[in-house]
Amino acid sequence: MGIKERQERDREAVRRAILDAARDLFVSEGYDNVSIRKIAERIEYSPAAIYGYFPSKDDIFFALAEEGFRLLGDPGVGEAHERLQNLPPLERVRAVFWRLYEFSRQQPEYFALMFVDRSVPRISREYERFAFAREMKRHIAEEIQRCIDAGQLPATVKPAVAMRLLTSGVLGVAVMRLSDRLPPGENADDIASDVLDTILAGLRSGIALKSRGVDLECGAPVADANVAQAFRPASSRSR
Amino acid sequence: MGIKERQERDREAVRRAILDAARDLFVSEGYDNVSIRKIAERIEYSPAAIYGYFPSKDDIFFALAEEGFRLLGDPGVGEAHERLQNLPPLERVRAVFWRLYEFSRQQPEYFALMFVDRSVPRISREYERFAFAREMKRHIAEEIQRCIDAGQLPATVKPAVAMRLLTSGVLGVAVMRLSDRLPPGENADDIASDVLDTILAGLRSGIALKSRGVDLECGAPVADANVAQAFRPASSRSR
Repeated sequence: MGIKERQERDREAVRRAILDAARDLFVSEGYDNVSIRKIAERIEYSPAAIYGYFPSKDDIFFALAEEGFRLLGDPGVGEAHERLQNLPPLERVRAVFWRLYEFSRQQPEYFALMFVDRSVPRISREYERFAFAREMKRHIAEEIQRCIDAGQLPATVKPAVAMRLLTSGVLGVAVMRLSDRLPPGENADDIASDVLDTILAGLRSGIALKSRGVDLECGAPVADANVAQAFRPASSRSR
Repeated sequence: MGIKERQERDREAVRRAILDAARDLFVSEGYDNVSIRKIAERIEYSPAAIYGYFPSKDDIFFALAEEGFRLLGDPGVGEAHERLQNLPPLERVRAVFWRLYEFSRQQPEYFALMFVDRSVPRISREYERFAFAREMKRHIAEEIQRCIDAGQLPATVKPAVAMRLLTSGVLGVAVMRLSDRLPPGENADDIASDVLDTILAGLRSGIALKSRGVDLECGAPVADANVAQAFRPASSRSR
C-alpha cells in the first residue's frame, strides 16, 4: 500500500469515528446539546482536528442523514430487489413502506435523526446533496401511480398523499416501539403490518381526502404550485 | 387568608415552578440528561428544597405524566362534551382520536414526554396512580365496541387493535409536525384528518388483521392471557 492509499485509509477511519460518535451523542443527548468539543472528547481528538473533516456540526448531521438515506434505500441483497420487481404493484408499494419500518428496527439511531428528532437541521438546506433522496421519493410516487394505472387503487388517490398517510402509520408504530410504549405481549411487527394493510384498504375504498398533496421535488403543492412558498426557507415555516 | 391557606398556596406555587422547569428541561435536553440539580438551578432553588416536594426525578415525571393524561382527557368545555354525546358511534370514535391530535398541537411538551421521548420511566410502575388513564382507554375501547354493535364496524374488529392502529396514525402525523418534517404547503391538520378517515375506512372494509390485541387493564393478551408475561417489569421487555 502506497503512502497516498494509507493516508486516504487513515482519513476515512477518522471520519468514520467522528460520525459514529456524533450519531450516538446526537441521539442520546439531543442535537442541540452536543458540541463539536463534546464529539472531540468522545473520540479523544482536538476540536480543531474535527474541523479538518467537517466545517460545522450541521455538516456532520448532513453526512449522517446522507448515510441514513442510502442505508434506507439499499435493498440489501440483490435477490430481495429482484423479488420486489416480480410483485404485483400494490404489494410493491407495501414492501417499500415495510422497508421503512424494518429500517426503524435495524437502524434506530439513523431513523431517530432522520425522522423524529426535533432539533436537527433541515435537509432541504442541502438541495443538491439530497437529490438522490428526492429521486427515491419520486420513485415511490411512481410505484403508487402504477397501482392507480393498474386499477388497484382508485383514480382519485394522489400518490403524494398516499405516501404521506402510509409514512404516518409506519412512523407512529416505529415511535411507539422505539420509545418502548407498547405493553408486554404486543407485537410491533404485527401492528406495523396491520397499519399498512388498513391504510391501503382505506385508500382502496375510495373515500374523499382533504390533503391536496405536495410536489416531491420542491415542496410546492401539486395542484396549485406556489413557487414563492415552495422556496421559503425551512426556518420561516410555521410549526 | 389564614396562615395555613397561605402556606398551602406558596407550596403549590413552588410545586408548579418545579414541574414547569422540569417539563421544559426534560423535553429540551432529554430526560436522562436532566438532574434534580439542573432543575433546581433553573428555578434558583437548592436541590434539597426540591426533594421536599418530590422524592426523585422519576416522581417529577410521574406528576407531569398524570397532568398530561388529565389534560388529554379533559374535553375542555362542557358544551363540547355534550356535542360528542350526540354524535353517531363512529364519529365519536373519530372525535376521540382527533382530540389526541389536537392535544399534540396544544400541549407539545406533554405529548412528547407521554408518547415520544425514549428515556422516561414507564407509567406502569405507578399502577394505582394511573388507574384513571387505564379507565380512559377502557372507555375508548367501549366506544369502538359500540360501533361494532351498531354495525358501523365489522364484528371481526378487535377494539384494542383498532385503538392501536388509530393511535399509530395520529402519532405519526403528530411526530412529523412536531419535528418539522413536513414540506412547506403541507397541512398537518388535513393529513391527520385523512389518516383517521383512511384507517377507519380500512377497518370498515373488514380485512383480516394480524395483531391479537392486548387487554387494556394489565397488558395481558386478550385472547391468550399470560399472566407471567403481563406482569413482567417494563425494563425486561424486548425493544
